[in-house]
Amino acid sequence: MRIDILTLFPAMFEGPFSESILKRSIEQGILDIHLTNFRNFAYDKHRQVDDSPFGGGSGMVLKPEPLFRAVQHVKTQSAAQKKRVVLLSPNGVTFTQNKAKELAEYEQLILICGHYEGFDARIEKNLADEAVSIGDYVLTGGELPAMVMVDTIARMLPGVLGSAESAVTDSFYESILEFPQYTRPRSFLGMDVPEVLFSGDHAKIASWRKQQALLQTVKNRPDLLENYVPDEEEKKFLSSIKR
Amino acid sequence: MRIDILTLFPAMFEGPFSESILKRSIEQGILDIHLTNFRNFAYDKHRQVDDSPFGGGSGMVLKPEPLFRAVQHVKTQSAAQKKRVVLLSPNGVTFTQNKAKELAEYEQLILICGHYEGFDARIEKNLADEAVSIGDYVLTGGELPAMVMVDTIARMLPGVLGSAESAVTDSFYESILEFPQYTRPRSFLGMDVPEVLFSGDHAKIASWRKQQALLQTVKNRPDLLENYVPDEEEKKFLSSIKR
Repeated sequence: MRIDILTLFPAMFEGPFSESILKRSIEQGILDIHLTNFRNFAYDKHRQVDDSPFGGGSGMVLKPEPLFRAVQHVKTQSAAQKKRVVLLSPNGVTFTQNKAKELAEYEQLILICGHYEGFDARIEKNLADEAVSIGDYVLTGGELPAMVMVDTIARMLPGVLGSAESAVTDSFYESILEFPQYTRPRSFLGMDVPEVLFSGDHAKIASWRKQQALLQTVKNRPDLLENYVPDEEEKKFLSSIKR
Repeated sequence: MRIDILTLFPAMFEGPFSESILKRSIEQGILDIHLTNFRNFAYDKHRQVDDSPFGGGSGMVLKPEPLFRAVQHVKTQSAAQKKRVVLLSPNGVTFTQNKAKELAEYEQLILICGHYEGFDARIEKNLADEAVSIGDYVLTGGELPAMVMVDTIARMLPGVLGSAESAVTDSFYESILEFPQYTRPRSFLGMDVPEVLFSGDHAKIASWRKQQALLQTVKNRPDLLENYVPDEEEKKFLSSIKR
């Protein structure tokens, strides 16, 4: 998969893309990441990428021309058939594991990062195929969201994860939170690992883990239970907590 | 504000923290960021930070000792009274602008990043004050989430944003999405800026922007309207869209 990132701050990506899974998938040729500074597509003498908004208001707005040209350019750099242009924007739909799965199907992904200011609306309406937001908080630019999306999407590409890191049992695939994990030492500063984990009784352990995952979900993310279909055992446990 | 980040991959933070607003707030002394590799607090000869889970299962689990020691150490590095230990974990509560506001009140924030594997549950229960997740997607580690949190929180510290970048009108403070912005050129590849923005009629422009913000929200984030209290004009417009 080829991912093009259009940004005014390409240097921000140096650390994050030089470690661990992303580094490995780039080295293995599974992921081909290209950073493009779209200021290079501003042709006036000051290489201006933003201007004040029509109709009044503070702040600056990213102009359409440099980004239209930059997207056109990076599209010609790949023979891929399935291309997708995604705007990182607080106004977009919320990024989720399902959205990542959908985007992982494309051969070329073009991510547009703004910085400081908003985009001219023609960029969102006529250049981007969709706008995506990674969460309900205000960030300085689209660079961190682009890194988050690349990491999530890369993990879904065939060959990126080793068997030990298999994504299948990770949270959000099963729609409730994960059960608590424990490792050595069995006792640490007076805090003990729950006895059931040493019982050798696999059914009992599985059942305990299920209950703990539900408890965790009820506590931190009750909203996830709205779309979750519990089995009979889980149903009983959930109604016992409610009582 | 002092922020301590405990991570196995401190090099990942180099690019993101060397640009723009974060760089400036570090230089101005508003933000004081310290990266600590908690592998340095694993005292066995292999400096082991993880081990296999009790009770069976694949993957590795981060051991409690190195992180308990690392947190204890960084706490002694600051005379701050108001300290908060936050675990970056997919099992945590969802990070939002309100959560950022809450965390911006602390004098020392200690962010714990896992990588690949989960944490021993004693870290979440007995070491962290809370666990936070930036969204419903699976990431390789807590490093990108820590960067996202630091960026969002830094923007709220007094003196970080200039007046031109003022956070007040940003999305998520007002709980619906922003209205579309337009800038020069007025016409670009046949795409024209809406006429109303040249009317000079400020009331008309304000009303159009309000409607556009609502349209955008209905399209991309209808969930945000559930908690939004519209004024009379907005109420009328919303019921006119529904018809």
